[in-house]
Amino acid sequence: MSSRGERTVEVLHEMLAAIALVATMSSAAARAEVPAEGPWALAIHGGVSSHVAELAPLERGRHLRAMASALFHGRRMLREGRSALDTVEAVVTLLEDDPLFNAGKGAVCNYEGEHDLDASIMDGRRHDSGAVGGVKHVANPIALARQVLEGSRHVFLVGEGAEAFARSRGIAMVDNATFATPSRKEAWKRTRDRQARRSDEGSTVGCVALDRDGHLAAATSTGGLTCKRWGRVGDSPCVGAGTWADDRSCAVSCTGIGEDFIRNAAAHSVSALMRFGKKSLRSALRRVLGRELPDDSGGMVSVDRRGNALAMSNTETMLHAVANSRGLCRWGLHADRVRRPKKKVRP
Amino acid sequence: MSSRGERTVEVLHEMLAAIALVATMSSAAARAEVPAEGPWALAIHGGVSSHVAELAPLERGRHLRAMASALFHGRRMLREGRSALDTVEAVVTLLEDDPLFNAGKGAVCNYEGEHDLDASIMDGRRHDSGAVGGVKHVANPIALARQVLEGSRHVFLVGEGAEAFARSRGIAMVDNATFATPSRKEAWKRTRDRQARRSDEGSTVGCVALDRDGHLAAATSTGGLTCKRWGRVGDSPCVGAGTWADDRSCAVSCTGIGEDFIRNAAAHSVSALMRFGKKSLRSALRRVLGRELPDDSGGMVSVDRRGNALAMSNTETMLHAVANSRGLCRWGLHADRVRRPKKKVRP
Repeated sequence: MSSRGERTVEVLHEMLAAIALVATMSSAAARAEVPAEGPWALAIHGGVSSHVAELAPLERGRHLRAMASALFHGRRMLREGRSALDTVEAVVTLLEDDPLFNAGKGAVCNYEGEHDLDASIMDGRRHDSGAVGGVKHVANPIALARQVLEGSRHVFLVGEGAEAFARSRGIAMVDNATFATPSRKEAWKRTRDRQARRSDEGSTVGCVALDRDGHLAAATSTGGLTCKRWGRVGDSPCVGAGTWADDRSCAVSCTGIGEDFIRNAAAHSVSALMRFGKKSLRSALRRVLGRELPDDSGGMVSVDRRGNALAMSNTETMLHAVANSRGLCRWGLHADRVRRPKKKVRP
Repeated sequence: MSSRGERTVEVLHEMLAAIALVATMSSAAARAEVPAEGPWALAIHGGVSSHVAELAPLERGRHLRAMASALFHGRRMLREGRSALDTVEAVVTLLEDDPLFNAGKGAVCNYEGEHDLDASIMDGRRHDSGAVGGVKHVANPIALARQVLEGSRHVFLVGEGAEAFARSRGIAMVDNATFATPSRKEAWKRTRDRQARRSDEGSTVGCVALDRDGHLAAATSTGGLTCKRWGRVGDSPCVGAGTWADDRSCAVSCTGIGEDFIRNAAAHSVSALMRFGKKSLRSALRRVLGRELPDDSGGMVSVDRRGNALAMSNTETMLHAVANSRGLCRWGLHADRVRRPKKKVRP
C-alpha cells in the first residue's frame, strides 16, 4: 500500500488529468449539444486488469483519459441521434486502436507469442448478433463482428474461415505483428517463464448503449489471456456469456475470467433476472456479480431501457466510464464493488 | 400427406419395430435392474431434421431403433448408479458413431465438402463445461469436450488449437473422410448446386441426465449445417445456447437452427425461467420454444432435479427418447409440439 504522502500526490495528479481533459472536451461537447428526445445511456469498460492499479499515477491517468475520451465520443453520437449499434461499434473501435487496451492493437500474446482476437456485437432490437473468434489478421475485430451481424446467415465464425469471410467483405487486414506492443511482449515472456502471474487477464474492452429511439446494443472485444493455448476462446465472442443486448431488458458487456462468465451465462443472466425475476438493473447486476460468479472474477457495464447506466465489479478495479441523458458523466478505476457475503470463521 | 392405407402400413411397421426392440432389450434391462436410490431421468434427441419424416417406414424405423438403443444404454448406466456426466458422454458417443446422425460419423458436409464438428458437455455440479468448435479429425468430439472440461484451464477451444490439445491428450484422431457417408455427400452436392433446400439442418444429437446422486449433466454434438461456410460455429458448442446443466434447475440440450438458439440464449433461458421465474420445467420449455424462439426453429430435451424428463419442439418432428425412474420409457419422431399463438387473419 502507498503511504499517505504518495496517495496525496496521486490524487493531485488525477485531478490535474481530469481538469485538463474536461477543458479539452467541454467545447467539443457543447458544439454537439442538441435537444434530447428519448433518454440515452452509455457505459464503457477497459477491463479489470489489476496492473492498471499498480501503474504510476501519470500512466494511470493515460488509461483514465482514454476511457473519458471514448465516453465523450459515444456520448456525442448518442446525442446526435445515432443508433446504439453504431455507437458501441465506434467506441470499441477507438479502444481497439488504442495500444493501452487488450483488444486490437495492444492485444496480449498467446502461448506462441502471437495475437488471437475475439469480438462480438449484439443488436437488442431482434437479438441479431455477430461474433468472431481466433482471428489473427483483422485490424478491427469488432468491424468484422458487425459484418457477420449484417451480412452472414451465420452468427459465430472462427479462425481461418472467419478471415476468409473478412476478405470477402473487404475488411481491413493487417500483419499479426501489427497488434504487438513491447509491454505485452514483456508480459508474455515473464508469464511463459513462470516469473509472473498472468496479470493481463481481463483487460478486455466493451461498450453498451441505449439510443434515443429506445434501442439497446452491446459490443465486446479482446485479445484474451496472456499465454492462452489451443485455440482458446473466452466469453467475449460468446453471446450470452460476455455480451448481451435485448430491448426488453438491458445491454451488458463483461470483462474478467472468461471461463467463469461462460459457465454462468453471466451477461444473459442479468437480462433473465430483469425479465423473468422482475429485478431492477442494479439488483440483477448485484446478484450475478455477488452471488452467481466467484469473487474476483470480473465486472460488467450495463444500460437499461430507462436510461440507467451502471458499472459494477467483484474485483478491486475496473476501468469504466458511464454517461446518460440525466446528466451522469463519470469515469474511473474503481466501479461499484460487490462482494459475496463472508462466511463465519472459527475463532 | 400419405393416404389412410399407407398410414396404416406405416403404423404396423413401427409397431413391429418396437416389439422387436423391446424383446431384445427387456432381457438386458432386467439383468441390470437394481433397487433405485434417488430418482434418475434421461432424455435424448437425434435432431429435428424433417427428412426423417419423409423416409420410408423401415428406414424411419432404423432411426427410432437407434434412439431406443441409446436410451436403453443410458438407462442401464443410470440404474447402475453411474454419474450423469459419464452417461451423457456415453450416449452421445454412441450417436456420434452411428452414421444415421449428423454428428461424428455421418456429419453433414461444409461448403468445401469436408466435415467440421462441434460439441459441448456441461456438469451441473459446479457448471464445469468443455466445448470444442470446428474440429476436423477428432473421432469423437464429445470425448474431446469432456477432456476440455476435465483437463484444461480453458472452457472453449476451436480449430487447429483444439486438435493440438486433442493430440496432447491422446484422443483418437481420424482422417476427415472417415466422417463421410454417401447420403451426406449427395445432400451437399444438391445443396451446393441449389437443387435442394438445406434439409439436414439440425439433425444434431444430444443427451441430458439426472443421476441417482442428484447431479445433472448435458451433452450436444453436431456436424452443423450442410454447406456451412467461413468457420461457422452453431449453438451446439455454445454453453448457454445449445447446452446447459445446473443442479439447481435443469439440464438442456437443443437442436435446430443454431443461430436462433444463440440469439435467444435458449438453453440457459429454460434454467433462468425455473430459477428466477419460479416456473416448472414444462412451462419453462413451453415459454422458450413457444414465445422466445421463432416457430419451426427447433426442439429441446430436458430433465430436472425431480426426475422429470421432457422432449418438446416447435417443429413438426424431433427424434427423441425419454426415460425415468418413475417408469417413463418412450421414444418417437413427434415430441410435444409448441406453437406460437396464431395471429388473427382478416377474412
